Amino acid sequence: MANTTGNLTQQKGTRAATVTGLLSDIANLGTDPVRGGYTRPVYSTAELDLREWFIHQAIQRGLAVETDRNGATWAWWETPGGDRANALVTGSHLDSVPGGGPFDGPLGVASALVAVDILKTRGTVPTRPLAVVVFPEEEGSRFGVACLGSRLMTGAIDPDKARNLRDPDGNTFADVAKANGLDPRHIGKDEELLGLIGAFVELHVEQGRGLIDLNQPIAIASSILGHGRWRLSVTGQGNHAGTTLMADRHDPMIAASRTVVAIRDTARNQPHARATVGRLQPVPGGTNVIASRVDFWLDVRHPDDAVTASVVESIHQQAQLIAAEEGCTVTLSEESLSTTVHFDPGLQGALQLALPEAPILDTGAGHDAGVLSPYVPTAMVFVRNPSGISHSPEEHVLDEDAETGARVLADALASLLS
Amino acid sequence: MANTTGNLTQQKGTRAATVTGLLSDIANLGTDPVRGGYTRPVYSTAELDLREWFIHQAIQRGLAVETDRNGATWAWWETPGGDRANALVTGSHLDSVPGGGPFDGPLGVASALVAVDILKTRGTVPTRPLAVVVFPEEEGSRFGVACLGSRLMTGAIDPDKARNLRDPDGNTFADVAKANGLDPRHIGKDEELLGLIGAFVELHVEQGRGLIDLNQPIAIASSILGHGRWRLSVTGQGNHAGTTLMADRHDPMIAASRTVVAIRDTARNQPHARATVGRLQPVPGGTNVIASRVDFWLDVRHPDDAVTASVVESIHQQAQLIAAEEGCTVTLSEESLSTTVHFDPGLQGALQLALPEAPILDTGAGHDAGVLSPYVPTAMVFVRNPSGISHSPEEHVLDEDAETGARVLADALASLLS
Repeated sequence: MANTTGNLTQQKGTRAATVTGLLSDIANLGTDPVRGGYTRPVYSTAELDLREWFIHQAIQRGLAVETDRNGATWAWWETPGGDRANALVTGSHLDSVPGGGPFDGPLGVASALVAVDILKTRGTVPTRPLAVVVFPEEEGSRFGVACLGSRLMTGAIDPDKARNLRDPDGNTFADVAKANGLDPRHIGKDEELLGLIGAFVELHVEQGRGLIDLNQPIAIASSILGHGRWRLSVTGQGNHAGTTLMADRHDPMIAASRTVVAIRDTARNQPHARATVGRLQPVPGGTNVIASRVDFWLDVRHPDDAVTASVVESIHQQAQLIAAEEGCTVTLSEESLSTTVHFDPGLQGALQLALPEAPILDTGAGHDAGVLSPYVPTAMVFVRNPSGISHSPEEHVLDEDAETGARVLADALASLLS
Repeated sequence: MANTTGNLTQQKGTRAATVTGLLSDIANLGTDPVRGGYTRPVYSTAELDLREWFIHQAIQRGLAVETDRNGATWAWWETPGGDRANALVTGSHLDSVPGGGPFDGPLGVASALVAVDILKTRGTVPTRPLAVVVFPEEEGSRFGVACLGSRLMTGAIDPDKARNLRDPDGNTFADVAKANGLDPRHIGKDEELLGLIGAFVELHVEQGRGLIDLNQPIAIASSILGHGRWRLSVTGQGNHAGTTLMADRHDPMIAASRTVVAIRDTARNQPHARATVGRLQPVPGGTNVIASRVDFWLDVRHPDDAVTASVVESIHQQAQLIAAEEGCTVTLSEESLSTTVHFDPGLQGALQLALPEAPILDTGAGHDAGVLSPYVPTAMVFVRNPSGISHSPEEHVLDEDAETGARVLADALASLLS
């Protein structure tokens, strides 16, 4: 465990940093010249530089910095007695998807630091400990499992499975973790640390258009949509593209393509449902070969888990009908299923009291807050994204919305500290 | 140039081998335990073993064996004077696609050897030289260019381009050719050898269902359908699969899928047209990401090149309409285009006189005979494939049809020798 204790002097009355100022400090770290935006996978040089920046900022604020045995970095503002129990925790992540935007993750970390500044300028003396956390591998863009840090801490992933995850270069998570100062034998559920968390509040850039449509800068989250992944595999008859008459074909590309369109139409007819096919692989995949099989993956999300199930069932039935019409067969198998996360009503109510004008929105994106929610009271705050686009260089936050977010986070934390 | 001269003693009156007997000699070479069938890429151990078998068979028949500077193996039955001009050439190839059948290529080589036997048992004394040829890399399954051997010989491919072709392991054709006894500096157009060929007749397993439908064992080819490859690229808006409402999407997977179905419907409504999408790649290709771009490849064939062009134009227009409806854009670019090959009418007529019952069929598959046809009079004979399936372990030829094929080839050659 890395342990760096900063200057604990209270800085009452010093001027708060700004969110845009903090983000401009890191604007040159991990830029992607090919995709645009930022590519900051966990334990890359860029992500390590961002963590160093975070540790520096935390120490400047007199916070006690530690890295836990699963690789999350914690900056503690302890109570005068030095007790950490029933801590109020805020924060987010610093890693990004390939070619991501500057706000997904860092906005929540920078806003947490500024909220600490605001509380200090107000002369707040914490009645319970406050911590700012940076979770590793939230995006899952290096080792394939989203929210890996919070999953390890809560025991939501088996440590053996985690140790054997591999990045695109074939390195195991165990080896990469070891090279970055962790002992891979000691990763996994951290009951002691989890037991210290009294509540977790994560501020995050909104990844959709909800706040644009409502013309509001800030929302409180109600839930994370249930979310599953299914694999469909359509089998037909591979054959020669030149010699096989159209009438003699059993082409799984046709059945798969018709099914992709049926999936979209099904989701479009079901309010609040989202269904996506972003990955599709014909086998063998030659230009002059009628495919023998097409594998494709279905992502479905809806606030009501029963609706998610019925959407998938409807898609399965349509896929079978289409496959039969094309002389093919189809199988559908579940690869993962996360039920809808409903954030803690008490904590949500407390945020609503502190932020009476903020609308309540659900989200289709996964977050560390969602992973933590079965274990500790958890809430989220979203900041408007005027592009409505996420996981892309086009992701954006207005300067004034970013500062409003930090102030609102400070207000919410103050109400929970008092 | 490898030069192995066999026993030139005429073997008049000896018993002819059978095609099925010869193919059973090589039935264990290059079997594919994963895909089934055979995987015999050019210059693999399997393909080299097959060539050794061929050389052995040719020497046994008293033929003079040589490998030309582009890697084709020739077995010459010279006239008594030893002249090779105006040679009648037959043969095919021994390489296969991955997981191919036993007949695509080897049937033509074995039938040529048996036809030589039949002519010898009949006491034929050649009035013009006869050669059996094995062309390398007909399938293009190792270096990506079909009929590479015949293309090099005729100058249809630039030798520099050929030298720099790479196999899936990254080896250049130049290096692989050198390791197999060729001088890569000397590959390319072989005017002298080409000038010796008076006519080329290739026997090949049929790769469609034409002879099944006609209930006939043997056909004479009229033409090879014109054939092109085009790349379509649909660009939309990449975004988060969870947070992007269905109504807000510009998903290129939907536009691509609708276009794949439109391509099939267009070809189905155009007699004799074949259009296939066997390769499709979403970018970035993540399960939880709405693709930003989808690339897919279109293969179109028709006996009339003007119809091929109009089919592609119609597909392009429909793709643009669909892309616009989905808020996407599409580009279409030609990657290759081979016009329809009409085999030599004189040679086709001579075969029809020798084989009066054989129907005339076109084919959608490319062959070395098609590459040679602009340079020398060329013809093809097809043998029935009762599965109708090719480039697959299910490809088949009945024993009696195989022997009929060799006898018919011998008859055709005899008529051209007399």
